[in-house]
Amino acid sequence: MVQDAFQQKKEHILAEIKSSSLDLSPKGTIDELCFPIMNLINAHMDMVTTSSCSGRLSVFVEGNKVHDKEIKTGGKGEGGKWLFVTHDREQVKSWIEKLEEPVIFQSEYNLKRMGASTRYILYKYEPFILHVKCRDFSSASTLFNTAMSCGFRESGIGSNNIVALRINIKLDVPIGYLDELTGKLVFFVDPKYIELMDYITLSKFTENANKMQELYNKIEAHILKAPREASKGLKKLETKEERRERKIKEGLLRQKMIRSQDTQN
Amino acid sequence: MVQDAFQQKKEHILAEIKSSSLDLSPKGTIDELCFPIMNLINAHMDMVTTSSCSGRLSVFVEGNKVHDKEIKTGGKGEGGKWLFVTHDREQVKSWIEKLEEPVIFQSEYNLKRMGASTRYILYKYEPFILHVKCRDFSSASTLFNTAMSCGFRESGIGSNNIVALRINIKLDVPIGYLDELTGKLVFFVDPKYIELMDYITLSKFTENANKMQELYNKIEAHILKAPREASKGLKKLETKEERRERKIKEGLLRQKMIRSQDTQN
Repeated sequence: MVQDAFQQKKEHILAEIKSSSLDLSPKGTIDELCFPIMNLINAHMDMVTTSSCSGRLSVFVEGNKVHDKEIKTGGKGEGGKWLFVTHDREQVKSWIEKLEEPVIFQSEYNLKRMGASTRYILYKYEPFILHVKCRDFSSASTLFNTAMSCGFRESGIGSNNIVALRINIKLDVPIGYLDELTGKLVFFVDPKYIELMDYITLSKFTENANKMQELYNKIEAHILKAPREASKGLKKLETKEERRERKIKEGLLRQKMIRSQDTQN
Repeated sequence: MVQDAFQQKKEHILAEIKSSSLDLSPKGTIDELCFPIMNLINAHMDMVTTSSCSGRLSVFVEGNKVHDKEIKTGGKGEGGKWLFVTHDREQVKSWIEKLEEPVIFQSEYNLKRMGASTRYILYKYEPFILHVKCRDFSSASTLFNTAMSCGFRESGIGSNNIVALRINIKLDVPIGYLDELTGKLVFFVDPKYIELMDYITLSKFTENANKMQELYNKIEAHILKAPREASKGLKKLETKEERRERKIKEGLLRQKMIRSQDTQN
């Protein structure tokens, strides 16, 4: 059987995902949280996932901000530096102890020394995001509408029928700055505030997991299981065997997620 | 001359914008900052702006979070309460003095009293966002690609060829909580931290205005002034007279913006 161009491209992308996820496996459960919804979407012959992040906490020093006399804020940018990143809620609580560089808590920082070029230390929670390449605009629209209907209000269709599934569950908190004179990392919030942010981040991880599950359910009900006449672009569903395998994998992952949620409080 | 359906819809939308912006005028310069780019886009016969926000600082108490046993965080939601909102950078510095309800700064708050249902007070900066209804997918794609090319990386095409132009310049900072026992608003950050956030917010206003200008320039160069053969959907440009009027209005607004930026430091 001669395959169509989309199917060929899809198989190529899936092979890449498979090899890269094997590479990542020593790092633990990182983006395993994306696998259920990725597998679900990839079971549809008109869709293939192209990039994903299951949600993460990151702490970083902003890069240099002055480019061509224009100030840019909030980005990692040129010369920016990751202090900590995790996709794993288990790693949230003790992040500060794992920093390579010591930080100074200094509530007596001088406000007047902050300027347009100050490089702040940002504490960010960013939720799940998934990009899905669709066969045509019709299948892209179906996916977009399904996402919008369950709160993924910042979703959108881009070039080449790639749909970005986005939700607005964020934290974006300046917690310190790089002291350019001493080269030290100075926190202007106290350890208790960091502890509180970590607690709130854990609730964001939980909310994010709930929204991923809601999206999963909607996509399954409205797209994968939709009657043929309602889903114009649907030409072939996964086989029974494929479905069984997917369900087993997902069950295991869901158990893992539930176990990890139990440890929050 | 018989008008097409898109043109009729566009005129209807523009009439609504005109009447509502007149209604808003007593409030001052609020969304005037959007006018230049709105006027530019509306000068294209295949595009009409449907909603906009020029960027804003908001401070609010989260709504009730427990719905059907599921926790939702970070939204104004049911029972949420605005404490302060402004689109005007001039109003940023003294917002805390304008609150109707007094707040308590209490660094000795009890972390253990924070739970999944705690209603936090959030301090947010949200950047410019604009929705543009386009005549067809071709014109929507052109606008989308132009926006992506100048950093509006969270843009997307939605239903009915409506393009959302979005950028990621945010602050999303928990600064306090509603004490359910006393009904008081308690800040767990100190006044100095608020002062610093206000300072950072002003730099976000500046960066946001720069990005709006950059988007304006790109849309003007790549879409409004593009050679006819390159812009498939472009059937009619504004007349010389329309262009002159637009330029005068924009010049006045830009002067206003520059004056308002000068007062930042």
